Amino acid sequence: MSFASRLWGSLKEKGTPAMVGLDPRPENLPEPFRTMALTGPSAAAKATLEYHRELLPLLAKKVPVIKPQAAFFEQMGDQGFAALADAVGFAKDLGLLVLMDAKRGDIGSTSAAYAKTFLGGGIHNAFPPSDALTVNPYLGEDACQPFLDVAAEHSAGLFFLVKTSNPGATLFQNHGSPPLADVVASAVHRWGTSFLDESGWSSLGAVIGATRPEELQHFRSLLPKAPLLLPGFGYQGGTANGLDPAFDEFGLGAVVNSSRGILWAHERDEFAHLNSWEEKVVAAVDEMVAALPTVCGDDKQA
Amino acid sequence: MSFASRLWGSLKEKGTPAMVGLDPRPENLPEPFRTMALTGPSAAAKATLEYHRELLPLLAKKVPVIKPQAAFFEQMGDQGFAALADAVGFAKDLGLLVLMDAKRGDIGSTSAAYAKTFLGGGIHNAFPPSDALTVNPYLGEDACQPFLDVAAEHSAGLFFLVKTSNPGATLFQNHGSPPLADVVASAVHRWGTSFLDESGWSSLGAVIGATRPEELQHFRSLLPKAPLLLPGFGYQGGTANGLDPAFDEFGLGAVVNSSRGILWAHERDEFAHLNSWEEKVVAAVDEMVAALPTVCGDDKQA
Repeated sequence: MSFASRLWGSLKEKGTPAMVGLDPRPENLPEPFRTMALTGPSAAAKATLEYHRELLPLLAKKVPVIKPQAAFFEQMGDQGFAALADAVGFAKDLGLLVLMDAKRGDIGSTSAAYAKTFLGGGIHNAFPPSDALTVNPYLGEDACQPFLDVAAEHSAGLFFLVKTSNPGATLFQNHGSPPLADVVASAVHRWGTSFLDESGWSSLGAVIGATRPEELQHFRSLLPKAPLLLPGFGYQGGTANGLDPAFDEFGLGAVVNSSRGILWAHERDEFAHLNSWEEKVVAAVDEMVAALPTVCGDDKQA
Repeated sequence: MSFASRLWGSLKEKGTPAMVGLDPRPENLPEPFRTMALTGPSAAAKATLEYHRELLPLLAKKVPVIKPQAAFFEQMGDQGFAALADAVGFAKDLGLLVLMDAKRGDIGSTSAAYAKTFLGGGIHNAFPPSDALTVNPYLGEDACQPFLDVAAEHSAGLFFLVKTSNPGATLFQNHGSPPLADVVASAVHRWGTSFLDESGWSSLGAVIGATRPEELQHFRSLLPKAPLLLPGFGYQGGTANGLDPAFDEFGLGAVVNSSRGILWAHERDEFAHLNSWEEKVVAAVDEMVAALPTVCGDDKQA
C-alpha cells in the first residue's frame, strides 16, 4: 500500500492529523528518566529507550504518526542510535506510522545510503525502516533521485524541505523570483506525479512551517497532491488558526507536529494539577487534538 | 588553536592538500574485510572498524585530513555508528584531522544537537569530536547559527555546501540572479569574519565541487578567506587541472578529497601488479598527491 494511503488511513483511524515529535533531551525528560539520563552516556541512552517504551503506547492510542528527530538520538552516540532504532521498531509494533526527521541530503551514492538506512533497513537489516523521511533538496534533482528510488522500492514517503518553520528561513528559501521555495515546491510536485495512488494523493510530501499559515494556501496550490508536514505547532508558536488551506473537506492533506509542547507537558503549569507525567502527556495530546481539524474520512464527510 | 591554523599546519607538515574520504561500502572493502562484512550487520560494522584500524595508519603517513562520510556508517545501524566513533577517535590519535561529512542542517535547537554531536562530544562525551563538519545551509542564518556557536566554542571548523560536485547541483544552487550559490557564499564569507585568525584565514569554509574548476576563481573571489573543500577528485571526474585558483602562493587554501579512487584501489587495474590492498592504497594516495599542488608552507615559498 502506498505511503499516502497508509498515512490517510491512519489519520482516519485516529481521527486527527496530530503528530508528536520525539526530541529526547536528557535534561527535559520526566522523572525518573531525567535523573537517570544525567549520569552518563550509556545511562542517557538507556533512559531514553525506557522513556519511549512508556511514552509510545500512550501516543499510539491518540495519534497516527510520530516523528523521531535523529539529532537528539545521535547526541548519545551509538547507544543513542540504538535507542532510535528501538523507538522506531516499537512504534511500528504499536501500529504507529514513523516519519524519520533526519533532513538528509547528499550526492547520489551517499543519498542512496541515507535512504537505505532510514527507509530500506540499512545493510543486513541493521536499522528498522521508517514509513517516511525528511529530505533536504539543496543538492538538486540527481541528488534527490536516490531517495525517490528507495522510497518507490519500499512504498515509503518523503517530505522535502520547502519552507521551514524558523524565522530566518527566508534568507535562502525566498531568494530569486519566483522564490527558491516555489521552485523546490514545483520540483517536488513534478517528482511526485510518479508517486500518485488511486486516491489522487502523492507519497511525496513537503515541509511547510506551521508558523507560516499565511503561506499555506500558496504552497497548497503549488503542491495540490502532496501531504504536507506542518512543524512548529505549539512551542514554536504555530497555532491551528489558518491551517485550513492544508486540509481537504475530509480533513486530509497534512500532519501537524508538536514536539516540546507534548514532551515537556510535565513542565507546563496548566497541567500541574495532574499527578504523573503520563497523565500530563495525555492531557497535552488531547489539547492539541482538540485544537486541530478533525479527520472525518471519505465516508462521513465533514 | 583555530581550525584554520590546525588545518594549514597539518597541510604543511604533510606537504599536500590531499584528503581521503571514508565511505565504507561492505561490498567494496578489500579482502578479508569484504567477506566478513557480507555475513550480517554486526560483522559488517566489525569489518569496517577493523579495516579502518589498518587503513588509517597508512593514510596518516601521507595525508593531513580524512573525511568520514556518516551515511555509510549509519547504514550499519548503531554498530556502524560505533565504528564511525572508533575511526574518528583513532584518526585523531594518529594526528590526522577529521572533517566529518554529515551535511547536517535543521532549525535552531536541532542544529545545536547535531553540532554538539559531531564537534562538541555529544552528551556526556558519547561521541569523539571531529575538527570540522559539513553543513547544509538551506534553512537559513538562524538555523546555521548554532553550528557557528558550537564551532566557536570548540575551535572547530565548518564547511558549508555552496556548489556541490554533482551534475544536477545547478537546479537550485543556480536559481536566481545572482545565483543562490553566490548568495550562500556571500553569507558564509560574512559569518566567517568572526572566525578569522592571525594568518588572515577563516575557520568557516565552503564546499565547491572539484568537478567545476571553471567556477573556482569565481567562488574564491567571493570567499577570499575561506578554506575550500573540493570533493569529487578522481572517481567523480575531477582532476588537478584548473584547481589553481583555490590555492595561494604557498599551496594553502583548499583540501581536495578523493574517496573511491583511494578506497577502491584494490579494484583498479593499474595497481594489479601490487600484492596487497595496503600497497595499492598507498600507490593510489601517492598518485593523488603527485597530481595535486605541493604545499610549501610560508617559510619556503613555492
